[in-house]
Amino acid sequence: MQSGHGKRLYLNEVSTRDGFQMESRFIPTDDKVAFINRLSDLGYAKIEVTSFTSAKAIPALQDGEAVMQRIARRPGVVYTALVPNARGAERALESRIEEFNVVMSTSETHNLVNLRMTREQSFRQLSEVITLAQSAKVPVNVSLSCVFGCPMEGEVPLEVVLGWIDRFAQRGVQGITLCDTTGMAYPTQVQEICATALLRQQALDFTAHFHNTRAMGLVNTLAAVESGIVRFDGSLGGIGGCPYAPGATGNVATEDVAHMLACIGYDTGLNLDGLIAAAAELEQLVEHALPAQVSRAGHRLTRHAPPPDFSAILSRAHERDILEAQP
Amino acid sequence: MQSGHGKRLYLNEVSTRDGFQMESRFIPTDDKVAFINRLSDLGYAKIEVTSFTSAKAIPALQDGEAVMQRIARRPGVVYTALVPNARGAERALESRIEEFNVVMSTSETHNLVNLRMTREQSFRQLSEVITLAQSAKVPVNVSLSCVFGCPMEGEVPLEVVLGWIDRFAQRGVQGITLCDTTGMAYPTQVQEICATALLRQQALDFTAHFHNTRAMGLVNTLAAVESGIVRFDGSLGGIGGCPYAPGATGNVATEDVAHMLACIGYDTGLNLDGLIAAAAELEQLVEHALPAQVSRAGHRLTRHAPPPDFSAILSRAHERDILEAQP
Repeated sequence: MQSGHGKRLYLNEVSTRDGFQMESRFIPTDDKVAFINRLSDLGYAKIEVTSFTSAKAIPALQDGEAVMQRIARRPGVVYTALVPNARGAERALESRIEEFNVVMSTSETHNLVNLRMTREQSFRQLSEVITLAQSAKVPVNVSLSCVFGCPMEGEVPLEVVLGWIDRFAQRGVQGITLCDTTGMAYPTQVQEICATALLRQQALDFTAHFHNTRAMGLVNTLAAVESGIVRFDGSLGGIGGCPYAPGATGNVATEDVAHMLACIGYDTGLNLDGLIAAAAELEQLVEHALPAQVSRAGHRLTRHAPPPDFSAILSRAHERDILEAQP
Repeated sequence: MQSGHGKRLYLNEVSTRDGFQMESRFIPTDDKVAFINRLSDLGYAKIEVTSFTSAKAIPALQDGEAVMQRIARRPGVVYTALVPNARGAERALESRIEEFNVVMSTSETHNLVNLRMTREQSFRQLSEVITLAQSAKVPVNVSLSCVFGCPMEGEVPLEVVLGWIDRFAQRGVQGITLCDTTGMAYPTQVQEICATALLRQQALDFTAHFHNTRAMGLVNTLAAVESGIVRFDGSLGGIGGCPYAPGATGNVATEDVAHMLACIGYDTGLNLDGLIAAAAELEQLVEHALPAQVSRAGHRLTRHAPPPDFSAILSRAHERDILEAQP
């Protein structure tokens, strides 16, 4: 582990898609727009705004078009959205989405359970989406699930992961996100997979997406940084990403990631105090506590005042010295 | 970050002292004894059984003698306890404690607030304790607080930390625990401090004690391992260690540490399934949820069954292929 020496890293925020989609309470469109506008000022490289899935499948994000239309787009921030199929692609293009994020799993069982299709069926469907994006000159990122393991199949062989990366590279996508969908990644595995992928497809922009399910979200992030990955997904407050149980964590928290990387000397471009304040607002929006640590504890050099009776403690300690010094 | 290649690391459990001391409900002596006996079978190098502090100061641990008398001591496990002063040392020696753990802070303000003494006063008091231990040939470990920062003073200069290490080394103690008392440590700092300390006092046994307050408990652990530290404190379930708020975490969880180290290929000697089961019992004992992750999520290759309708999902997916293949 070495100092970051100011190396630039790029953070993406997924809370407004990956987080909001799981909330039982519908977040009003006005609140979504205001929250995304707030995020736009914090230094993110990319914000995943919404999902163009059917309103029936994900009612929480049925206002995707309205949100995209009303947010203030800040130059330098890429506004992306999840696009599952050709119908979603049309909606996304009408909304002038700046990147398509498409998703499939490297695990056949997980893909069937999560998307109700075989991986080959997903690939064909996403291929249509990619064609639509390409005809509109919109870049495509592919989020590959279960790259570091599948909760039902166990290990996903590296050759299988690389095979899907190669097929999407051949289809001309711009980026691949290596997703640790249920928090099975560990540092040396992260290094092997990330380094191999980076070397194999040098023209692709790779992103890492970690979960903190087994408390390794930050150590895996650092492992990926040290392998050469420069793009990371995070979710403010650690919202979303299928936590197993109340109190358990899913997505790694953006503020925890940004805080660690700043401590080590990396430049994420993010405003940490702004992230902490935004995470507090997010807890208000969703009306429940979120598992992130830094938004609770503050950054490491947050100064706490000694207790009010500190001067009395000090006086008594010094009196004791005087008493002991007497013969 | 490199594979552990089976390198042996040594884990100490602090839940029965650092955890129990903060519980509002008194854990019955029988339950403490049964729980410690259970821990003794799990592969720990050391268990911090209790504290010989006054019953008035820490009523939760007023049964230290009874617990020490009644536990079954397993050969190979060191049974240690916190010893604050000469009176505590007498009680500890009567209880045939196998190691004294003494505590002071490297931060003057923190020492005053926490122990009501200046650091010099603490050193004199601990010096008496060390003399008593040495006359009984009992080894002494010194837990130094705020080595990675003080919540009231900010950074604690490395020379100050090294100064206290040197003074205790001169007093002939066997070990020093470098404590991240409020979770201010970060990986590159951990490496600098640990590597410097190890090089400077090569005859001492160093232990690292991390908190997960800012989500860096595991990445700091790995940083310390890679600096050459081989001994670590952990607390089952992540109990204890002054969490800031409900849901926030203090001590790093033993099962989370053991799981990560096993994934990377280190040999901690610990039985991970046994730790997870013991953490569940600990939640029963203290009657509230604990923040550890691995005892909730299981180890990374825990296999989950696909949902009950999986064969129906699969049939429908295959039917779709057949339909699409028709002219």
